[in-house]
Amino acid sequence: MSSHSPTIAVFDSGFGGLTVLRTLLERIPGAHYIYLGDTARLPYGEKSQVTIARYAVEAARFLADRGADHLVIACNTASALAMPEIVEAVPIPVLGVIEPVVQMTHYRHPNAETLILATTATVRSHAYRTSCEARGLHPFEKACPLLVPLIEEGWTDHHVTREVLRIYLMEALAVCSPSVVILGCTHYPLIAPLVRETLRELACTAEVVDSAEATAFVAATGFPKLAEATKSTRAATFECYATDSIEKFQRLGSNFLGQPLPAVHLIDLGG
Amino acid sequence: MSSHSPTIAVFDSGFGGLTVLRTLLERIPGAHYIYLGDTARLPYGEKSQVTIARYAVEAARFLADRGADHLVIACNTASALAMPEIVEAVPIPVLGVIEPVVQMTHYRHPNAETLILATTATVRSHAYRTSCEARGLHPFEKACPLLVPLIEEGWTDHHVTREVLRIYLMEALAVCSPSVVILGCTHYPLIAPLVRETLRELACTAEVVDSAEATAFVAATGFPKLAEATKSTRAATFECYATDSIEKFQRLGSNFLGQPLPAVHLIDLGG
Repeated sequence: MSSHSPTIAVFDSGFGGLTVLRTLLERIPGAHYIYLGDTARLPYGEKSQVTIARYAVEAARFLADRGADHLVIACNTASALAMPEIVEAVPIPVLGVIEPVVQMTHYRHPNAETLILATTATVRSHAYRTSCEARGLHPFEKACPLLVPLIEEGWTDHHVTREVLRIYLMEALAVCSPSVVILGCTHYPLIAPLVRETLRELACTAEVVDSAEATAFVAATGFPKLAEATKSTRAATFECYATDSIEKFQRLGSNFLGQPLPAVHLIDLGG
Repeated sequence: MSSHSPTIAVFDSGFGGLTVLRTLLERIPGAHYIYLGDTARLPYGEKSQVTIARYAVEAARFLADRGADHLVIACNTASALAMPEIVEAVPIPVLGVIEPVVQMTHYRHPNAETLILATTATVRSHAYRTSCEARGLHPFEKACPLLVPLIEEGWTDHHVTREVLRIYLMEALAVCSPSVVILGCTHYPLIAPLVRETLRELACTAEVVDSAEATAFVAATGFPKLAEATKSTRAATFECYATDSIEKFQRLGSNFLGQPLPAVHLIDLGG
């Protein structure tokens, strides 16, 4: 942990946010990273707003106390439901995963019909719909509850996942004609190639954008004092924390991160 | 709630245990039932033993305080990891879901090679393996992590679920030749016909037994003072409680119960 590198904290309820960390490591290599997965209390999606905000604030405070200069909320549920509370709780800049990808979609495709693939909990929050509509995009949200379990099973290039995607996308394309498809879950970058292929097979030419990529771009350009770190040629350093289930974290995390995971430290946030 | 009917409480971390309640309603129609799903704190499977025991004891005490005469733990994780603590905590007879189905398997097929299909968490606990080995059965545990999400998607008679089952069962049958297949998850009774068909297609003649059926049988015969209630011709009465996410409970619960769900009451067990 160099005292000269900026420290970027990345928070998720689980290990899905490692896809965001992966992109950050590529885009801002000169930083030090602290990743925290609140695995003891996942899934956040089924919990009440008050509970989610309390969990996210506890996590944000832990990360600020560990010396973070910037905080990325790599969790769709917390981004949807707890941003004001998090921003209020810590004295550092905070970025969620929803606004960046919607901003980028709007910048590249103003007024576009936009299909958002996400978990049931994210769709139920309508956070993407609200954010898209505020920018004049025409959103259509499609819940894809089987994709996370399929990805966690390791079936990221498997005929069953292909068939499930085909079913979900056919259902969505029956009621909208998108120019852009947003992967609105931090697990989904692992099946981005499959989503692109399946859209092509269904004669849909929409561009597929993922929130990890957009969030890393906005962090690199929007967070203060990171200009040097984006130009660094040395490899980023990072440390990982989880609140439970370190076994699953270790087993699946490296697929999400795209490189071996360092030792995951167990911490207790209470609750 | 008649003061003359015995009251049987049924506890699960979610609504999967409604398949156990469904069978109990058929087998012991003259009882009053209280169902509790600790939906705020699911899934139990990824949590530590100490935490699971604490949650289960809180739920058991709530149900005993509501006037339960008997308690069925319709949750594989709590049955595997918290039975001694639950039995200690409440002054009423307690039955889990693991022992009954293993007892029944052993009674009908002594020394049988036994395939247990279950969630990753249940397999990791090896509760079925331990119980089977103690009776001289030869267990083989197969984790089937996609089955619960597929059932919750409502795809209980769907070609994707059929294909996933075929893959899981082929993997299992490559290393064992079972005479009995135990459905070791309270969700699985909803796909019991599919499991039987798929086994037949794979030329496996194993008998499929489910823990809901076995648990209801052992409750009817083993709980004291239920003889009258098993012979009753009137319909059972029941009340439902959940700790969060009542929407999902209401939406999916009736499929599991096999009849419309009554109003689900929200309660707070803390935590």
